[in-house]
Amino acid sequence: MQNPRNPTEEIEPDLDHDLDAAARRMGRLSLHLAPPPGRGGGGGGDGAAAVLGMERCARGGKGGVSVERSAMSEYMRGKHTEIQERVFEYFNSRPDLQTPLEISKSEHRELCMRQLLGLVREAGIRPFRYAFEDPWKYFAVAEAVGSIDMSLGIKMGVQYRAMINHNSNVIADSIRKLIVQSLGRFFHGKFATVFAKLLLPTHDEKGFADMGVHAFIVPIRDMKTHQTLPGIEIHDCGYKVGLNGVDNGALKFSSVRVPRENLLNRFGDVSRDGKYTSSLPTIGKRFAATLGELVGGRVGLAYSSVGVLKISVTIAVRYSLLRQQFGPPKQPEISILDYQSQQHKLMPMLASTYAFHFATSYLVEIYSEMKKSHDEEVAGDVHSLSAGLKAYITSYTAKSLSVCREACGGHGYAAVNRFGSLRNDHDIFQTFEGDNTVLLQQVVGDLLKQYKKKFEGGTLSVTWNYLRESMGTYLSQPNPVTARWEGEDHLRDPSFQLDAFRYRTSRLLHSVVLRLRKHSKNLGAFGAWNRCLNHLLTLAESHIESVILAKFIEAVQSCPDKNTRDALKLVCDLYALDRIWNDIGTYRNVDYVAPNKAKAIHKLTDYLCYQVRSVARELVDAFELPDHVTRAPIGLQSFNSSRLSMLSASFLPGKAYALETLNLFGEVSSSYSNPAIENVKQSVIRISES
Amino acid sequence: MQNPRNPTEEIEPDLDHDLDAAARRMGRLSLHLAPPPGRGGGGGGDGAAAVLGMERCARGGKGGVSVERSAMSEYMRGKHTEIQERVFEYFNSRPDLQTPLEISKSEHRELCMRQLLGLVREAGIRPFRYAFEDPWKYFAVAEAVGSIDMSLGIKMGVQYRAMINHNSNVIADSIRKLIVQSLGRFFHGKFATVFAKLLLPTHDEKGFADMGVHAFIVPIRDMKTHQTLPGIEIHDCGYKVGLNGVDNGALKFSSVRVPRENLLNRFGDVSRDGKYTSSLPTIGKRFAATLGELVGGRVGLAYSSVGVLKISVTIAVRYSLLRQQFGPPKQPEISILDYQSQQHKLMPMLASTYAFHFATSYLVEIYSEMKKSHDEEVAGDVHSLSAGLKAYITSYTAKSLSVCREACGGHGYAAVNRFGSLRNDHDIFQTFEGDNTVLLQQVVGDLLKQYKKKFEGGTLSVTWNYLRESMGTYLSQPNPVTARWEGEDHLRDPSFQLDAFRYRTSRLLHSVVLRLRKHSKNLGAFGAWNRCLNHLLTLAESHIESVILAKFIEAVQSCPDKNTRDALKLVCDLYALDRIWNDIGTYRNVDYVAPNKAKAIHKLTDYLCYQVRSVARELVDAFELPDHVTRAPIGLQSFNSSRLSMLSASFLPGKAYALETLNLFGEVSSSYSNPAIENVKQSVIRISES
Repeated sequence: MQNPRNPTEEIEPDLDHDLDAAARRMGRLSLHLAPPPGRGGGGGGDGAAAVLGMERCARGGKGGVSVERSAMSEYMRGKHTEIQERVFEYFNSRPDLQTPLEISKSEHRELCMRQLLGLVREAGIRPFRYAFEDPWKYFAVAEAVGSIDMSLGIKMGVQYRAMINHNSNVIADSIRKLIVQSLGRFFHGKFATVFAKLLLPTHDEKGFADMGVHAFIVPIRDMKTHQTLPGIEIHDCGYKVGLNGVDNGALKFSSVRVPRENLLNRFGDVSRDGKYTSSLPTIGKRFAATLGELVGGRVGLAYSSVGVLKISVTIAVRYSLLRQQFGPPKQPEISILDYQSQQHKLMPMLASTYAFHFATSYLVEIYSEMKKSHDEEVAGDVHSLSAGLKAYITSYTAKSLSVCREACGGHGYAAVNRFGSLRNDHDIFQTFEGDNTVLLQQVVGDLLKQYKKKFEGGTLSVTWNYLRESMGTYLSQPNPVTARWEGEDHLRDPSFQLDAFRYRTSRLLHSVVLRLRKHSKNLGAFGAWNRCLNHLLTLAESHIESVILAKFIEAVQSCPDKNTRDALKLVCDLYALDRIWNDIGTYRNVDYVAPNKAKAIHKLTDYLCYQVRSVARELVDAFELPDHVTRAPIGLQSFNSSRLSMLSASFLPGKAYALETLNLFGEVSSSYSNPAIENVKQSVIRISES
Repeated sequence: MQNPRNPTEEIEPDLDHDLDAAARRMGRLSLHLAPPPGRGGGGGGDGAAAVLGMERCARGGKGGVSVERSAMSEYMRGKHTEIQERVFEYFNSRPDLQTPLEISKSEHRELCMRQLLGLVREAGIRPFRYAFEDPWKYFAVAEAVGSIDMSLGIKMGVQYRAMINHNSNVIADSIRKLIVQSLGRFFHGKFATVFAKLLLPTHDEKGFADMGVHAFIVPIRDMKTHQTLPGIEIHDCGYKVGLNGVDNGALKFSSVRVPRENLLNRFGDVSRDGKYTSSLPTIGKRFAATLGELVGGRVGLAYSSVGVLKISVTIAVRYSLLRQQFGPPKQPEISILDYQSQQHKLMPMLASTYAFHFATSYLVEIYSEMKKSHDEEVAGDVHSLSAGLKAYITSYTAKSLSVCREACGGHGYAAVNRFGSLRNDHDIFQTFEGDNTVLLQQVVGDLLKQYKKKFEGGTLSVTWNYLRESMGTYLSQPNPVTARWEGEDHLRDPSFQLDAFRYRTSRLLHSVVLRLRKHSKNLGAFGAWNRCLNHLLTLAESHIESVILAKFIEAVQSCPDKNTRDALKLVCDLYALDRIWNDIGTYRNVDYVAPNKAKAIHKLTDYLCYQVRSVARELVDAFELPDHVTRAPIGLQSFNSSRLSMLSASFLPGKAYALETLNLFGEVSSSYSNPAIENVKQSVIRISES
């Protein structure tokens, strides 16, 4: 084990200024990644590289469209391909840093720390720097790291991302702080950022003035002995459903004192003589500003959740192409992805993955813009959109992970095939950085504010702008003629699709406003909100779906390559029509869609699933996830047993089950709890006299 | 460690007859539970009992109904309360047999074996006997054992249940066989039941005659050394998403010979002189009969899945009552179960749990009847209903486990609160004993057969009987007058609810028959089936929902106690209307429900959620799950910290997180990844000069 090098070397020199207090603090805080005495830091640097020459074959598709894989992946991934590949290659070259399938909590925490140190020190990945220079690059790294082990993704996030969000301006003030959210019993940090009330001494009766919640850096462990400091109690959160590489904990403070300069002073500061200054006039505004900085976390979670969905849908689609079962009498068995039911499970999910990819790319784009321009309107959009996309996408991905597991039958239940750990690790995405149900209420709260402004003659922010015209449409009755149009051209027309999504949003908005007004007379604002809560949540989701569709349509239209554009159009149509069909009751209730049209939408959705299935392999290949990242033996790009054996030697964990079983019986039953039945195919037992 | 006693003592003496071959086989097979040399059998017998005097307080409810807990639980559980309590008490008295939160695969397998031996030998539970005498009692034991550790439930199931199903008649012939499906590398059994083709020597050119698939007992390990026998290869399935206490594996046979008497001869036998006899004339019929015996497994999975759902919904409801957040300005925070969104997540789930309870009770009833009477019509019903309920309920429970986790926020993510392990263990219920998508096709295949018979003048079996009248209703147009009725009395009328469910089923059936007929001309039978597959699956689900509702309505009407009946009626109404609302698009499309009625259904569903919430505590208490079975600290019956501390000493695993954290901060944030923010409530940090 090497001696830990000082991680400050990853901090850009040009950001360094020379304020005494800052320098003092830096010197100490920079050690927060230092391993506690007796625990290891970075691992060895010379792991055996097992670089695999993956063949990248673009295959022509059927059903009217084809996908040129390299063109598609080029359009999808853009400029941050390289940094993700560097992350992937580093971990591929370091089998000792691969997380094994079975690992205890304490070993996982230690491994996760070594992974993080290796990433920064050996692979030269600089999340801290990227976070300032190019948030997009930062989120690309976070996604890639999360595909290796989501614990690592989260641990990196709480070390670096939180720092960015809470303190970017603070850093502009040249005061650097490191934030530690790893608080467990075996945690690796030395400091915590604590949100607490700032009370200033006064000479009145009360004795102090409450300035509201501020953030403070609080040392919690001795730098040398790693012992808990006086007045600090640390309680480990214990074994969790997932993310056991992250050492969450709870802290309790009793009469802890910190020096004045430990106040994170972006939103309020205290001078040496005890005077308080802030650009924000009230406690409420300062609290909102402090919490508002959490937005970067939500952007990251939405983005990484799409990364998880990509891995999951890739494994499930590849397995469904490989696995054959039943078929017409006396003909070969067919791939299970040729079953309508399997297409129904996986093809809208694949379409959603593409949709979410473009939506979160847009989110990162406006987030980066906000970080540069500090434009208030953009900030409002980022705030609302990050809350909405984080809630909507993480809920969708969480459900999809279960669908994928089930779609892969017994093989999906083998730990080596990833669905279990992906689901367990990703699960909490729905809760942290804001519970999804709460976040959707923020979205709709913002929407209602915009709605009010509109009626007061104000302008809508960019994201909501579409409501300007669709609210007008809503006020008139649906057109009984177009409600009956059922031609494929019409149903695949982006303006029909967008109109349908926006009409629904407008209608939900208009009706909830009336209901809120009615109920607030008797129940008060809180009671009325609660009485309409499900309605409000549906409105929020409808809005988010509208934004996602709009961004997808833009992405289709902006695509320069015709083949790729046609394929994306197909996928986008499936996304749009599947969502309309899922909510067909709403459309039927207001006669926006007549019965014949409802039927046509259903039929076309099935047909689009069938068409997308014909290019499904190429569509998942375009995610460019190397086999050593997806790892699941059932989800390899080019599946055959000799390939499997080769791969097994290099990096596949838990190969005992997957490889032996797959090799032994070719492709085994999806109900692998009954291997005996499968043996029928292989075994003939002859009866002998007893 | 005690010497293992001979488990044959649990076999009823009056079933023993004296055929030589059977006795020989018995002698050997009875050792299949014997621990391999060097591995432990039963544990010590004197674990410290920690019996807790639970208070059982029946609380009056609000909202027009009240629940008398003891009356409700008496009606729910009936005669098998006692045996479940014996199981619970045994494990409560043996903390050494509790499965810890964190346990390695190999330790879990060993522990699971000790749990099983303890259950049989020390607690005197006799699953083998109950399976013959009283299947209901057997399934009650399986449910209880599964609540302790689902691995144990499944291990017990594959040891005993499979034996029952495959060989009940064989045993009537006084030939006993034990079936081992625990096949892993560390597996504990000595024999496997292998399904293989029976080839008999002939004197023609071919040299043998294929009699089709039969089941054989095959010794796979040496009785003394536990070494794999010649020609046998065993491959461990490795680490799984869940159920790691069960040692699944794959087997390969090369030139293995077994004596004639090892043939399981219920469906076909071979005499000493090589003559084959069978009551079933074709290979196909014998294969169907053999596979048909799997039905008992499905009954058990459906029943146990409801048990898992009960635990999960109990924990989530209790936590949601306990946990408070926000509220009207300047008033105390309200329980999160008072939020409409939380009610929407959990109350229909609670209603479904009750619905499934009665449906699976009915299933066990007709299963028991079938086992006694061997009536073919009942057997057909059991076959179809067990497939349908297993598929429908296990899918529902799997989704609900994720909803419950998410509804409990960060606390739901702590392993100690159970959702993680329940979800991981239960997940595979959707796949084994028949993949759910395949099982639903069996249901609908049966339905189509019945439909055809009906048109040929035949009678419908009991389960499908309702279609007789509703098909008639379907053939006429929906009544435009009743389609507009929206009064609460009408919507809560069981005949409206049943009619709605059955109308939908009839309509789906009628339309799919037309579609199948149309497509089969061009696509053939297989192609047509696949083209209509989603439609067919929807039909199967609709049918199953109809059966569940019918059984629930019967259970309400049969309930002797008025208070209890009223409460059940409320719950049943919620079940029915929630399902109708979920599928409102279908009803609207055929104008079975007019827009005003759709709106009224939606509104009433919300209101019923609110009403059920007022008795939610009592409804989960009536499941009679002791705290030492639910175990989750956030889901205790009577939550307070002194109680928690007391409990922690006796049985709660992983208490470090839950108890310390809960005690430390009272009730902590639902986003526990940000404990720092929660500290705001507790911590005040004073600034001092630096």
